[in-house]
Amino acid sequence: MSFFRKKIYACAGFYTISLGTGRKEFHPKKPRPGIEHYIKEAGLGTIEQIENPENIGEGVIGNFVAERFCRQGNLGGFFPMVHPTFQYKPCTRVEGACDSGGLALVASVKTILADLADVTLCMGVEVQNSVKAIYGADYLAAAGWFSGERKNGHAYFFPDQFSQRAGACFDKFGYDNMRPGMAQWYVNAIDNARKNPKAQEYHNKNADLFATGMTKANPKAFCEYINVFDCSKVSDGAAALIFTSEEGLEKIGVEKKDAVEVVAYAQVQDNLTTPPPDLTKLSTCEVAARRVYERAGIEAKDLSVLEVHDCFTVAGLLAIEAAGFAGYGEGAAFVKDGNTKRDGSIPTNTSGGLIGYGHPTGATGVRQAIDVVHQLSGKAGDYQIEIDPSRPYGMLSSMGGNDKTVVAMILKKTE
Amino acid sequence: MSFFRKKIYACAGFYTISLGTGRKEFHPKKPRPGIEHYIKEAGLGTIEQIENPENIGEGVIGNFVAERFCRQGNLGGFFPMVHPTFQYKPCTRVEGACDSGGLALVASVKTILADLADVTLCMGVEVQNSVKAIYGADYLAAAGWFSGERKNGHAYFFPDQFSQRAGACFDKFGYDNMRPGMAQWYVNAIDNARKNPKAQEYHNKNADLFATGMTKANPKAFCEYINVFDCSKVSDGAAALIFTSEEGLEKIGVEKKDAVEVVAYAQVQDNLTTPPPDLTKLSTCEVAARRVYERAGIEAKDLSVLEVHDCFTVAGLLAIEAAGFAGYGEGAAFVKDGNTKRDGSIPTNTSGGLIGYGHPTGATGVRQAIDVVHQLSGKAGDYQIEIDPSRPYGMLSSMGGNDKTVVAMILKKTE
Repeated sequence: MSFFRKKIYACAGFYTISLGTGRKEFHPKKPRPGIEHYIKEAGLGTIEQIENPENIGEGVIGNFVAERFCRQGNLGGFFPMVHPTFQYKPCTRVEGACDSGGLALVASVKTILADLADVTLCMGVEVQNSVKAIYGADYLAAAGWFSGERKNGHAYFFPDQFSQRAGACFDKFGYDNMRPGMAQWYVNAIDNARKNPKAQEYHNKNADLFATGMTKANPKAFCEYINVFDCSKVSDGAAALIFTSEEGLEKIGVEKKDAVEVVAYAQVQDNLTTPPPDLTKLSTCEVAARRVYERAGIEAKDLSVLEVHDCFTVAGLLAIEAAGFAGYGEGAAFVKDGNTKRDGSIPTNTSGGLIGYGHPTGATGVRQAIDVVHQLSGKAGDYQIEIDPSRPYGMLSSMGGNDKTVVAMILKKTE
Repeated sequence: MSFFRKKIYACAGFYTISLGTGRKEFHPKKPRPGIEHYIKEAGLGTIEQIENPENIGEGVIGNFVAERFCRQGNLGGFFPMVHPTFQYKPCTRVEGACDSGGLALVASVKTILADLADVTLCMGVEVQNSVKAIYGADYLAAAGWFSGERKNGHAYFFPDQFSQRAGACFDKFGYDNMRPGMAQWYVNAIDNARKNPKAQEYHNKNADLFATGMTKANPKAFCEYINVFDCSKVSDGAAALIFTSEEGLEKIGVEKKDAVEVVAYAQVQDNLTTPPPDLTKLSTCEVAARRVYERAGIEAKDLSVLEVHDCFTVAGLLAIEAAGFAGYGEGAAFVKDGNTKRDGSIPTNTSGGLIGYGHPTGATGVRQAIDVVHQLSGKAGDYQIEIDPSRPYGMLSSMGGNDKTVVAMILKKTE
């Protein structure tokens, strides 16, 4: 039995450049586009790939914290700006910290399952370069519990949270095992980004990435157990993807081979007021992966491509374990051995991930889905991998906060 | 033909006291409960009215701008705090400025229509007394376009927006027509609130409400065309309501007579980057009302009870016109004549509305739905009106920003 009451497809994905340090176009003192510009650019980039956009019945915008970075809420109000036929149609902004984009995917699918629209436009956006990184870190800390854990928290709250996870892993699994795995994660991220013209690290020319990835933590300047290369970037960007029913696909003139089937998702919410049960595990991501595999009726070995939420290198390693590709404590060695490279046993974050492409937080879940769609439909350009016909599935796992809000979604190549 | 693909019911609504100036419990210098407390109180108040809460499959939280008032995002993370069986279930926060609660209603209904849950818990929350009113006004201005209209905007941005609407109405329909209508709106709001123990104006003892409502504007201290009594309050509060399918109703042990049927909704999004087409009209609210009547197959005259978004008295008058109860420019006289009183032709905002009950922004749309449910199922206590069996419908219209984001929903008394 299918998880969904009817067939759902995803197609026509588009994401913007991830703008921020590292991109040639970026200069901290120069004026940059506003959040509405990004929404419009991503929306139009998607619409250009379809016919009859008037069939788009509804919009969703995933965004984490524009109220602070851009002093802007009521974000659905930018939907009618994207296309004249969107005027007076519904649009909902959803928020779940860095998983806001993941929640947007779910909301877009639901509207179709509810028979309220045949075609929905799923968008995600974040603009973060509007303030200095230290203020941005405070804004992003809204993903943690203000009245609880944040009271005595680090100025760089989330880097510190994942630094503590790295420290716990060093203790349990050994620094000499973990650190090279983290460094290799960084190497893969940049290597993939160099194939993706929209990636923030596209222009990265560093000749010895592994040495950079191995940089020792400097607790006085940053965090106790991680270095700045372990962190995803501060980014401005947006992503948009179309979801449709079978009828919707016809209405917008997209052939099935250019679309990808959405097979199942799992949205899992952990309690924000309780500490993580185990710093050496992404327990909520694990629950989400287990549930989505079960709903899709597949196993990890059926995936040809994977997108995980590597806000930090250590999160990438733990996410690989949570997704069922490496045993507990074995993620670092699995990655160090090359399994997650584009030509590895499970190509992961093939367009650069959060560390290589960038992390415009509210856009990230949508961007992940687009990359899975692009890989499964052969549209991934220079970073295209080969899809083994016996493993026609791809998965994304999008995470908000410290493993608190998770969406995992499985997509399948069409026949 | 029904608008929905299957029957949807609402039941077991609960909202907290609207805490703020006017309430005896309120003192600006005394510590007050945090946002998570309100979510929990409203959620538990709802759950206590049902059996087997483990059947609640999903949560939604409507909230406008906790990132600023409470420095808190990732709000879905408070859902598992409400009840132990909610751990690892999905919860999505939705935002559409002051219509965030309206969007929560829609999202809760969709999940059931999508066959993803039989029972959903719809919540809305806002805590606004954490800062001085002038800062709060700036936070709430996030509902307007930051890079556009807000650049040279008033410090009290939204009061000024609706003051300008009042001024335009004074010009077009006459001050001596409009002002008494606005004053009467205030009178009704307080009069209804005095019957609602949870209302912020419950303790209001003013003997000449009409004279107070007629207070002249003082542009030097506040706005050009409105006085402070024309404004909804600064409030802390939350609301929660359960939506179910037919099967869901049985699972949670609620009899049909204690529930209300959700017949249709309309969610309408206007472009945030364009000015309102006519200051003397709520054009988007009008589109929403027209659509929802058509979808429900009814007319305004079939409603026994109405909830409109009276963030300001003038908005109340214009909302009555938008809902089809008074012609263009005739709202003030319609209200002045007593038509919207509890014993009038269309009892409106019977629990006090945003001016009488209070306006914890993200909770408001949910609170409105609860009051319609309570009236139609005979649970409105001291402010209960009589429901004419030939008019078994109630409607709520929830608005975000300056007539930008609107949800209208029609509910029906069960037989």
